[in-house]
Amino acid sequence: MSIDTTPPCTPLSSTPRTKLRRHKERAETDRAALYEILDAGLVCHLGVVADGVPVVLPTAYGRDGDTLYLHGSSANGAFWAADGQQICVTVTHMDGLVAARSVFSHSVNYRSAVVFGQATVVTDEDERWNALRLITDHLIPGRWAAARQPTGKELAATAVLSIPLAEASVKVRTGMPKDEPEDYELDVWAGVLPISVTFGTPQPDPLLREEIPVPAHIRDRAGE
Amino acid sequence: MSIDTTPPCTPLSSTPRTKLRRHKERAETDRAALYEILDAGLVCHLGVVADGVPVVLPTAYGRDGDTLYLHGSSANGAFWAADGQQICVTVTHMDGLVAARSVFSHSVNYRSAVVFGQATVVTDEDERWNALRLITDHLIPGRWAAARQPTGKELAATAVLSIPLAEASVKVRTGMPKDEPEDYELDVWAGVLPISVTFGTPQPDPLLREEIPVPAHIRDRAGE
Repeated sequence: MSIDTTPPCTPLSSTPRTKLRRHKERAETDRAALYEILDAGLVCHLGVVADGVPVVLPTAYGRDGDTLYLHGSSANGAFWAADGQQICVTVTHMDGLVAARSVFSHSVNYRSAVVFGQATVVTDEDERWNALRLITDHLIPGRWAAARQPTGKELAATAVLSIPLAEASVKVRTGMPKDEPEDYELDVWAGVLPISVTFGTPQPDPLLREEIPVPAHIRDRAGE
Repeated sequence: MSIDTTPPCTPLSSTPRTKLRRHKERAETDRAALYEILDAGLVCHLGVVADGVPVVLPTAYGRDGDTLYLHGSSANGAFWAADGQQICVTVTHMDGLVAARSVFSHSVNYRSAVVFGQATVVTDEDERWNALRLITDHLIPGRWAAARQPTGKELAATAVLSIPLAEASVKVRTGMPKDEPEDYELDVWAGVLPISVTFGTPQPDPLLREEIPVPAHIRDRAGE
């Protein structure tokens, strides 16, 4: 996969934990590639250390420039455990199963971003509001403006975590299997099974007042 | 979601880190629910602590009864760092975006399994072979027998990690948004945008010898 190096994309820092030792051809050092993977994702996996043990939780997120925001309940211990600590946030897209001629050469086509950094529980109310808007609109663009805004009580029940997009490992695999030269003669089918994530027809809440049509931002998200 | 308590399903242990404090209605304590979520997944997110910092990596996996197996390159430092240590393995299915009348009540329909336990780098050759077969057949059932088996050199290049399925948190959310009673009168559309993960038409490797048809196990996986 080619790397777009057009400004204003700046290389991500390469550190011992983001420097790839194997399959270097799968590394993308371009910031635009990082943005693309994050922006196309639905869920991230947040890794925190709690009592010395790793905890990996799926959660929603949003991005504002070079800051990633996560949110959760104020009662979520993992969020408070993360404040001021190093965390890891991973977003993965599965694009295909790669069936090779040898079991060893089997692989997966995927795009992943592994972000490392220090987490901060956001306390500034403007930044919190903006972060919650970004997280809501990340899943369904335009949804924030269409729904009832949060009350003070609802805001108090919500914790927002930020992590800077400064240190990340971006990996992409595309294309066909790479078998050993002698295996290409084998009588084994090889190729790729593409994977798609798609939205179905919007299902209205049965408790919806009948006169409310499906709005444009929902239809847009559904790809209708 | 109903919980199937038919034997031989036994409840998972409830520990401080798997006991849910919020949304207890989303907890599934049934082992069959855990198996179902794991068996239906394509990728897991492995959390390990390396140099005191959490690292979350997407990786393939397979299950044998109450043991989960992951594999990776023998050069993968995260695997060796994990040996004998507590790790976390999370599998998440995103089933739908839940658009509520208030932004606060927005949610996601999902199924997730968060497994905690001590990791072991598997050294027994029979167990390693079986684990690699299970991981291969997890992604494409029947693939192991159809492809060229691993050589000793290939086996040496592959590390296998096991984790017992003894402590896990299983959460499931289904259905429509749950808005505040007074919000049901609002002029805001509410409902669910279903999410599907599907396989496309198998793409043969252009380097494939032409006479090899798409085998049954690939067509089965593609749902054709």
